[in-house]
Amino acid sequence: MVEGKINKIHGWAAMKPGIKVEPWSYTPRPLGENDVEIKIDYSGICGSDLHTIKQEWGGTSYPAIVGHEIIGKVITKGEKVSEFNEGDLVGVGAQVFACHRKDCSPCSNNLDPHCPRGVFTYNSKYADGEQAQGGYAEAVRVDSKYVFHIPSSIDPSHAAPLMCAGTTVFAPMLRKGVKKGDKVGIVGIGGLGHLAIQYARALGAEVYAFSHSPNKRDQCLELGASKFILTSNKDEVDAQRHTLDYLFITSNSKSNQYNEFISWMNFEGTVVLLALPEGHMTFSPFEFVFNEVAITGSLIGGVNIIKQTLEFAHKHNIRPIIEKYPIDDVNNALQRMDDGKARYRIVLTH
Amino acid sequence: MVEGKINKIHGWAAMKPGIKVEPWSYTPRPLGENDVEIKIDYSGICGSDLHTIKQEWGGTSYPAIVGHEIIGKVITKGEKVSEFNEGDLVGVGAQVFACHRKDCSPCSNNLDPHCPRGVFTYNSKYADGEQAQGGYAEAVRVDSKYVFHIPSSIDPSHAAPLMCAGTTVFAPMLRKGVKKGDKVGIVGIGGLGHLAIQYARALGAEVYAFSHSPNKRDQCLELGASKFILTSNKDEVDAQRHTLDYLFITSNSKSNQYNEFISWMNFEGTVVLLALPEGHMTFSPFEFVFNEVAITGSLIGGVNIIKQTLEFAHKHNIRPIIEKYPIDDVNNALQRMDDGKARYRIVLTH
Repeated sequence: MVEGKINKIHGWAAMKPGIKVEPWSYTPRPLGENDVEIKIDYSGICGSDLHTIKQEWGGTSYPAIVGHEIIGKVITKGEKVSEFNEGDLVGVGAQVFACHRKDCSPCSNNLDPHCPRGVFTYNSKYADGEQAQGGYAEAVRVDSKYVFHIPSSIDPSHAAPLMCAGTTVFAPMLRKGVKKGDKVGIVGIGGLGHLAIQYARALGAEVYAFSHSPNKRDQCLELGASKFILTSNKDEVDAQRHTLDYLFITSNSKSNQYNEFISWMNFEGTVVLLALPEGHMTFSPFEFVFNEVAITGSLIGGVNIIKQTLEFAHKHNIRPIIEKYPIDDVNNALQRMDDGKARYRIVLTH
Repeated sequence: MVEGKINKIHGWAAMKPGIKVEPWSYTPRPLGENDVEIKIDYSGICGSDLHTIKQEWGGTSYPAIVGHEIIGKVITKGEKVSEFNEGDLVGVGAQVFACHRKDCSPCSNNLDPHCPRGVFTYNSKYADGEQAQGGYAEAVRVDSKYVFHIPSSIDPSHAAPLMCAGTTVFAPMLRKGVKKGDKVGIVGIGGLGHLAIQYARALGAEVYAFSHSPNKRDQCLELGASKFILTSNKDEVDAQRHTLDYLFITSNSKSNQYNEFISWMNFEGTVVLLALPEGHMTFSPFEFVFNEVAITGSLIGGVNIIKQTLEFAHKHNIRPIIEKYPIDDVNNALQRMDDGKARYRIVLTH
């Protein structure tokens, strides 16, 4: 059996609810025959990281090393791993295991993020009870099925946000069939939204960027939006009413008016929730029945979609706009992210 | 120009909000060159008739002759009508006009019920301002595009409920792609629901009938349901959780728990509202994001779908279960319908 090279993984863990992580180490589980050990170079900060360390979604198991936009180099591999070699530049996203059995309904429908035996990258437990720890650390050991080659055209620091934010926005565009000429709205121009504009545009859609921040207008147009709509401007919003084929909601702002959003949709238009609002959402049934609008949601991309996310970014020159912070400054970076000041994604450098 | 045969149409109109209609006559608009004049034999009573005469949806323009499940015989036709002849047995549903122009987005997508120039069968105005009047009457004049041949295998009284209830349930099954092997739930076993069971079964689906009335169990199984689920029985409901591919909600009962309904859905399952609940619906976003469930709605079927509804009923022996009332007894029939006692559709005989 091949042994991992790092016997104690040093990282930054949340020890209790709050916006604070601190140095903490753990002994990684033995390197499985299908596993890869990765020395981490970059970790993107995702909104989920904050929800987890603050325990806003409940049930955080501390200590918790978060981070699921991981880029690094393979330093060891299990004996059955043929797809990777030492030194390969690779990425890991928000999931590290699914059963991929033929009798598993989600796995056999390319919905492996919903596999009942699935393990997420952090704050999630393996079948043996061990807790998965994430990317705010020097290394990680994961099943090679959830390790992805990074195209050489993409700067490794830019690749990090594609592993979660990128695939999270691209997955429902692929699965729901966004195509050339569709009118696609994006609500919330942040880590996910600024990538969603680019992916939708590259699919040939006309993109409408909705934000309450007027200072994001120019950036959205540069990223490929056909139009920027300031949500506080009634005329701009009214001009879009009943026009959109898709609307991707990447914000979970408490000021989001979901019943208003569905009135922007064309007949049979689809609203896709990509962020989990706190509490409940209230709708008038009118738009559902009279305009046949649908509302649905999407979690993250599975194996097939992560591969397509990276390939499509390579082909269409899709890149996140990032701010880099050294991992030692992670707490300031988390605070900046929580304050909504990041433009548009923060990547920690190790 | 061809003139209509009936110069004054005698019918039963609601004169003010309430469950009461009374004899009233109107002068029909001139018979257009594409119009057909129909002597009415049967009119089904639809839930929309009651909402309209009670003014529960607001904006009823009295006097209003309701009724949009019309079966009768052609007695006159405009000079450009070639598809029908005097004596033909025909039906009219909930819509009597749409523009069908190529530059009309709904019409060109087979969504003619959503045509901005569309006219519904009653409580709706033609472009010239004249109000359309419905089927609780001796005759009706309508555009031949919204007149349909009734297959000879279908008893005319049975054909009536297919014109609205039938096409309303079949339309979203066709448009959303219900197919063999799908698990399809039906909530509410009434005029729409008892037809929905039959249409879904004939499409090859496994049908699950949900009702709070235990005495509908046997009937649902006879109609083709694989299983009847009493919604007050927690064990029966729990056994269906996260299993359904589609759920058609034909009831607008105030006790409907919409957030509970979505928990019955499998990954990427679709909930379709076919009845308009009063007030708002509240959802937890969890099932949307974590299970990718969608909720949408559907209004009525357009021209193409009404034709398919009748043809499919002919081919698969789909028939409503009806109670017949003479038109003179229409007020008792309306009261029985409002009391939820009809099993399962009332058809007025003229």
